[in-house]
Parts: sequence; C-alpha cells; structure tokens
Amino acid sequence: MRIEKIRSDYYRIPLPVALSDSTHGTMTHFELVIVRLECDSGHEGLGYTYTVGSGGAAIQSLIERDLAPLLEGADPRRIEELWERMWWRLHYVGRGGLTSFAISACDIALWDLRGVQAGEPWWRLLGGSRDRVPAYAGGIDLFFSIDELCAQAEGFLAKGFRAIKSKVGRERLAEDVTRIAAVRETIGPDMPLMVDANMRWSVEQAIRAARALAPYDITWLEEPTIPDDIAGHARIAREGGLPLATGENLHTLYEFRHMIAYGAIAFPEPDVANIGGVTAWLKVAHLAQAHNLPVTSHGVHDLHVHLLAAVPNASYLEAHGFGLEAFIEAPLRIEEGMALAPNRPGHGVAFDWAALEPHRVKG
Amino acid sequence: MRIEKIRSDYYRIPLPVALSDSTHGTMTHFELVIVRLECDSGHEGLGYTYTVGSGGAAIQSLIERDLAPLLEGADPRRIEELWERMWWRLHYVGRGGLTSFAISACDIALWDLRGVQAGEPWWRLLGGSRDRVPAYAGGIDLFFSIDELCAQAEGFLAKGFRAIKSKVGRERLAEDVTRIAAVRETIGPDMPLMVDANMRWSVEQAIRAARALAPYDITWLEEPTIPDDIAGHARIAREGGLPLATGENLHTLYEFRHMIAYGAIAFPEPDVANIGGVTAWLKVAHLAQAHNLPVTSHGVHDLHVHLLAAVPNASYLEAHGFGLEAFIEAPLRIEEGMALAPNRPGHGVAFDWAALEPHRVKG
Repeated sequence: MRIEKIRSDYYRIPLPVALSDSTHGTMTHFELVIVRLECDSGHEGLGYTYTVGSGGAAIQSLIERDLAPLLEGADPRRIEELWERMWWRLHYVGRGGLTSFAISACDIALWDLRGVQAGEPWWRLLGGSRDRVPAYAGGIDLFFSIDELCAQAEGFLAKGFRAIKSKVGRERLAEDVTRIAAVRETIGPDMPLMVDANMRWSVEQAIRAARALAPYDITWLEEPTIPDDIAGHARIAREGGLPLATGENLHTLYEFRHMIAYGAIAFPEPDVANIGGVTAWLKVAHLAQAHNLPVTSHGVHDLHVHLLAAVPNASYLEAHGFGLEAFIEAPLRIEEGMALAPNRPGHGVAFDWAALEPHRVKG
Repeated sequence: MRIEKIRSDYYRIPLPVALSDSTHGTMTHFELVIVRLECDSGHEGLGYTYTVGSGGAAIQSLIERDLAPLLEGADPRRIEELWERMWWRLHYVGRGGLTSFAISACDIALWDLRGVQAGEPWWRLLGGSRDRVPAYAGGIDLFFSIDELCAQAEGFLAKGFRAIKSKVGRERLAEDVTRIAAVRETIGPDMPLMVDANMRWSVEQAIRAARALAPYDITWLEEPTIPDDIAGHARIAREGGLPLATGENLHTLYEFRHMIAYGAIAFPEPDVANIGGVTAWLKVAHLAQAHNLPVTSHGVHDLHVHLLAAVPNASYLEAHGFGLEAFIEAPLRIEEGMALAPNRPGHGVAFDWAALEPHRVKG
C-alpha cells in the first residue's frame, strides 16, 4: 500500500463575530491548512490544522516542500515510522512550534485514511471508551460587555451545553470578578464554569486572581501565565488553590511531560492540530493517565470528540469558537451537555470545498 | 527613525565536502535565509539564519508574510519592543522551533543596523570584553575514515586552530573510542578536544560512552541525548563524569533556563541564528554567568566571534563546517588558536551577492 499524492490547501477564514482574549487581542480571522493524502487503495485521508492568524503560509510550505516528498510513495500504515521521519526531517527547525502544526495535519490525514480504510469511526478505532463526551462551550469573549457575556451564556445553554468557559485577564482583577460573578449568576450554581487567562498574568497576579475567583466554583483556571514557566505553574496551583489547565501552547509530548511532572497541572489539554496529530495526542492522554489525570482538549472539536471518546480518562471536550460549521457537512451535535461522536469512518469531517474556495490564500 | 523596507533572500548552498553526523546523516547542502532592513537614515542592517536542509522556505515565508508587515514603518532602535512583538505575533505557532529562526534573522539585522549607524563593531557595541576569543574547529566527520579524520585534524592545526571537536555516535562504541584516540594522538596531549554525539544516544549509552572516552581528556561531551530529556542530561553529567555541552537545538531563553537549572550542562551553546538573535543570545550568556557558567556557540562563527568577545564569560568559539567563506568578503581570521573580532561596523559580514545568486531558491 502506498501514498500516491499529497495535496495541501490554505485558507484564511473570517469569524462571524470578532473574538477576543487577553493575549491575542481582537481576532477577526483564523487560518486553516488542509492536507489530503491519496492512497493507491483508492481511499483518501484528510487532515487539517489552524492558527490564530499567523504562520499558515509557512505551515503549507513545510507540508509541500519538506514533508510531502517524504510521504509520497510511503506505506501509510506505518504511522509511527512516518511520524519519526517527519519529526527528524524537521528536527533542527522543530522540536515543537510551527513544525508540529505541519506534522499534525499530515498525521491526522494518515489516521483518517486508516479509519476510512477500516470503515471504522475514530472513536472506536482508537479505543472506544464511549460514544459521547461531556462538552463545554469555550467563549472567546474578553472584550464582550457583561450583557453580551450573559446573552452568550444563555445561547450556549439553549444549544444544549451544560458547561461554559469564559475569558479573564481584564485590565483590573475586579472586572474579571464582576464578569465571572455575572456568568455564574446566569448559569446557576451547579453548572461547571471554567476561566481562561490566556497567559496574561505574572505568577503573583495569577495567585491573587485564583483566590479572588475561587468563590464562583471554578472547575479550572486555564493558562494563568506563560507556558514556559513550569515552576510558576506549580506555585500558582499550590498557592492559588484552583486546579490548572494548560496545553494549547505545548507542542510536544516532552513539554507535557515537564508540565505534568513539575508544573502541577490538573487538566492537560493537548490540541491534536498542534501537538503532532493523533499519534502524539494519544501519547499525551496516556501520559496523563499514568499520572492519574484526565485529559481535555483545545480547538477542532470535530476531531477531539472522537479522541476523548476513545480514551478512558476523558474530561470535558472544548467546543471552540473557531467553528467550521459553515464549511463542513455535519457539524458537532450536542445533546444535554454531551457531544456525540459520529459513526462515519475516520474522523468523518467532510469539507464543503465550494464554501471554502473564496477564502483560499494564493501563494 | 523608521524601517522603510525589508527584503529576504533564500539560498540552498552546496557544501564543498559532504559532512556527516549521527543524526542528520550525510549533508550535501545547507539553507541560508538573509534579511535586509533599509532604514530611512540611509543605512542598511543585514541578518541571516541557516538550516541543515529543511524548513528554509517556511522561514522566508514567516519573514515575508508575518514579520515584515510588523517591522516596516517601525522605529528600529526599539529592539526589545520589536522582539516582543515578533515573539507574540508568532507565539501560537512559536515558542521556539522554526519561528525562532525567522525572529533571529530579523533581530540580527536590527542589531547590525545599530552597529552600522553607530560606526561600532558588535564586539565593542555589545560589551567589549576583548577583541579575540579562543576558537575550535568543529569537524562534521562521523563517516570520515580514520585517515581522513587525522588529515582533517592536521589541516585544522595548519590553519591556526589549537582546539578541535570530532563527531561520535558510530554504530559501536569501540569505533568511537578508536577514532577519538587517533585524533588525540594526532593533536598531542595538551590541545583541547571536544566530542559531539548529535543526540544519538540513550541516557545509558551516553553514560557508558562518556566513561569510555574520558581517558582522552575530553573538554566537553556535546548533545549526548535528545534535548527534551532534561533529567537525562543531569544523570549523564553526574554518572558519566564528562562536562556536557548543548544548545544548538534549544531555541528559547526558557529552554536554556530549564537545561541549566535542572540539566547540569557545563557549556551552554546558544546559536544566535536560531535562539532569537542577538537579543536572546545575550540573555542566555547572562543567564549562564548568573549560574557561574561560560557560554560558547554553535554555527555562524562570523557573528559569534563578536558576541563571545563582547561578554565576560566566553568559552570557545566554534568555527563551523557550514562556512560562508566562499560567499563573504572577509572570512574569519584565526591566529594562534584565537579568532579575531573584526573592527568593521555592525557584524561586518558583507555578502558576495553575485556568488550567492546561482544558489537562490525560487518561490
């Protein structure tokens, strides 16, 4: 069996509503890079990754110039061997960062191909722990007014969500407290509520904020400070008193290992689109299990619903603000707070190529 | 003062002799990406980075599409502010890896512009500790025969070098021992001799190798295992008994912090072309000093001769195998083992554009 051809596409997708967080400011677009592998079996595997607005063209360049020549002609069943070859081909400029995005898109396509060929959906192919997982709606809403914030929360409930995440990291801590109090008031006392600071704070600020937010029964505090400060995370968890989540900016298994072993995170959240694909995502999930921790997710919920359903230690799935609803045939279904893993083979995501076409970025 | 225009060029440079190490195999080319900043003062700043063969087109893409729009029109004197802007613009796809190469090239150009405008050579502009530093010749020679290896060592001595590094990591440890014994025999008992395993070994293999090589008076053992295994480095240093060097694959200040704080390296070797430029290189040098350590270098010796001459805690400069001698006007001068920092303004590297042109890679 061999990979005949690799094709990549790069799009810049406008967001229906401008989103905002403490680090990336106001975001009006995201970038989407798609990989398609054609196998001589006649099947196709599809993978994709995304960015918050920069680097997409470089990701496509890595795929086209550096990874495609290595994958074309290879046996797509030997995913571990191909993964190592991709890693080492790009190692000098890699070990995470941008190269992990390119490897992710290719690895996802390889696993999709495997599922398509087996006629099995990912959630069952990769472990089959359950066919649905609890989901939360991830608001990207730091600069929303309090009215908009509460309306958004009500909208999430109407859509079937039973857990919500809001951004924190406003100029003054008192604003964060007022906003989170309002969200808690809106959703009632029993529903899980997470907060996400997008690395805005110093360690001291994060400890102070964690203590101030604790009365609102916070499930986790996400990215309180920069992911490079491992010892800082341990201090925030210990002295702030809230469980920590982090992972969207950790792009290797080793980075998770260090953060879990030394940094005291309670909810590792690898993103299959930037950790190195399914191959690396599963290893992070297993690493978490070995440390008696759950695993959660970041972004691309149409893929993560399968991965979380596959493994035994799943926590909440994030339903992310960079939704692809307008560009895929069957968007994620939420019922009574649970996201349903579809039974289509592979990941089952089928793009509406005509809808994407106006957003294509030319080289 | 403002940056008027940014230009980038991307070349694939053939090596005069094929080079070899334990990880990258046989290398016949390297990639060179050059950035030129035009300032409204009429001065130009020049920066560059390189790879071992992959990712160069993606680096140029990051510079052209993501960094140039941010730099054009900016005040080139505010280097720290521009550095942070580059870092955060690329953070989601960054935190090291490929993006650090792109930031490095731009940062080097900013510092070159500053030197050119001040009429000062880097070595004095950045600290001026001395005007020359001890240098070693870095052989990239794992698959050379022993005769070639010894001939190379003699050639290095004839060129004025008084310290040498050789590759290790052959299939069997006994081969490494025979080869290093032959080099030591060639150069005599007093000359510093380093060895470099390019991440080939497990921790156990590295400890065994360090013990076997110790009788040949090894100044440092470089990259015994993958840079992601921080605790492993500590074990190798403690149980192997040789001082460790590492750094060419660490692409952020934070990675050096973790390796120095927990990994027991004796010779941090940041590479200005992939650590984030002069701005980040100097911070690593200062971090090393704070830990009572020297700093050494990897690659681009025409730039590092200045940086090592500038700081008080310099160890050996590596004269690297990816030489640009054929493409620059005044190659590095070595006298009695010392590399001389030139007195031309900035870094003083002037490319021979006509000689480079045949190697340009088209988009």
